[in-house]
Amino acid sequence: MGVYVSLIHYPVYNREKKVVATSLTTLDIHDIARSSRTYGVKGYYLVQPIENHLWLARKLLSFWQKGHGKEYNPKRWEALKLVKAVPGIEDAIADIEKLEGKKPYIVATSAKRYDRAVSFETLRSKIEMENAPFLICFGTGWGLTEEFIESSDFVLEPVCGPTDYNHLSVRSAASIILDRLFGLR
Amino acid sequence: MGVYVSLIHYPVYNREKKVVATSLTTLDIHDIARSSRTYGVKGYYLVQPIENHLWLARKLLSFWQKGHGKEYNPKRWEALKLVKAVPGIEDAIADIEKLEGKKPYIVATSAKRYDRAVSFETLRSKIEMENAPFLICFGTGWGLTEEFIESSDFVLEPVCGPTDYNHLSVRSAASIILDRLFGLR
Repeated sequence: MGVYVSLIHYPVYNREKKVVATSLTTLDIHDIARSSRTYGVKGYYLVQPIENHLWLARKLLSFWQKGHGKEYNPKRWEALKLVKAVPGIEDAIADIEKLEGKKPYIVATSAKRYDRAVSFETLRSKIEMENAPFLICFGTGWGLTEEFIESSDFVLEPVCGPTDYNHLSVRSAASIILDRLFGLR
Repeated sequence: MGVYVSLIHYPVYNREKKVVATSLTTLDIHDIARSSRTYGVKGYYLVQPIENHLWLARKLLSFWQKGHGKEYNPKRWEALKLVKAVPGIEDAIADIEKLEGKKPYIVATSAKRYDRAVSFETLRSKIEMENAPFLICFGTGWGLTEEFIESSDFVLEPVCGPTDYNHLSVRSAASIILDRLFGLR
């Protein structure tokens, strides 16, 4: 079964560790769609509960999916046709269940290391072996909330370089995670 | 010695394969600076010959490097202090030579596979063994020109996923390449 990704605008932390909904960043849509298409992800859910930001995301997607986007840049269309904008994570889960006939396992990602974190290798083999879809979730702002992470089926280990700095952009982190899971080496 | 990166706005191709200078994209500065800091890169050169775009890049950098940026977001400052905006690649090379006492090896990156391309593993061991700095170059737009690639010391193999799609954003490609070269696994 397939792997799906989700970019979560709510519930995430802001810099004061308050739970907020973050603004839409249009480059997040493009960059993570292009990485998703590269690494064989079946669908990319933009979770955005702020009504006019959700409207804007859908407006942008409709240009690419139904408007002149395909003629303008067919390669970009090929990536952006994977994207759906929904108000909540439960909408993404329900849509995947409809497509695959099974609820997805929820994978949370974080720059922090959790005791129960699974390695990239472990997650890769679980995805290969389980007969169920997986939904890998990326948090905007200052990351997914503790409650979200606790309620997920798996937490992935953080991406680490040779330094103690762990403040990648969500676009970079998502791309690196997909490469570590599905890249050809 | 150190590894440096460069984001090249000229000479690169546009969609019609004409050689152009591309516009500044401010998120490129942030995202690649954060990845550079994560993976221990010593400096990040923004090569931008368009005069008012270079001015804008320097204005943005001066906020982060000398203005209120450090108080506003110390983690972002830590990444952005690595960045220098210069009009040409020769300025980046000269600056590295001044810092390290040796000219850097130039590494070109491309989504295409060249006959003389080196693997990630080969480049990693060359960086460890050579007593010289390396400058890894990323092209904006539709990629670095053939002339640029031919004149470089090394061309890196492309990043590949399990599909035939090879249209990652330069932000994603740069992050994945740094992770493949310097990430802890």
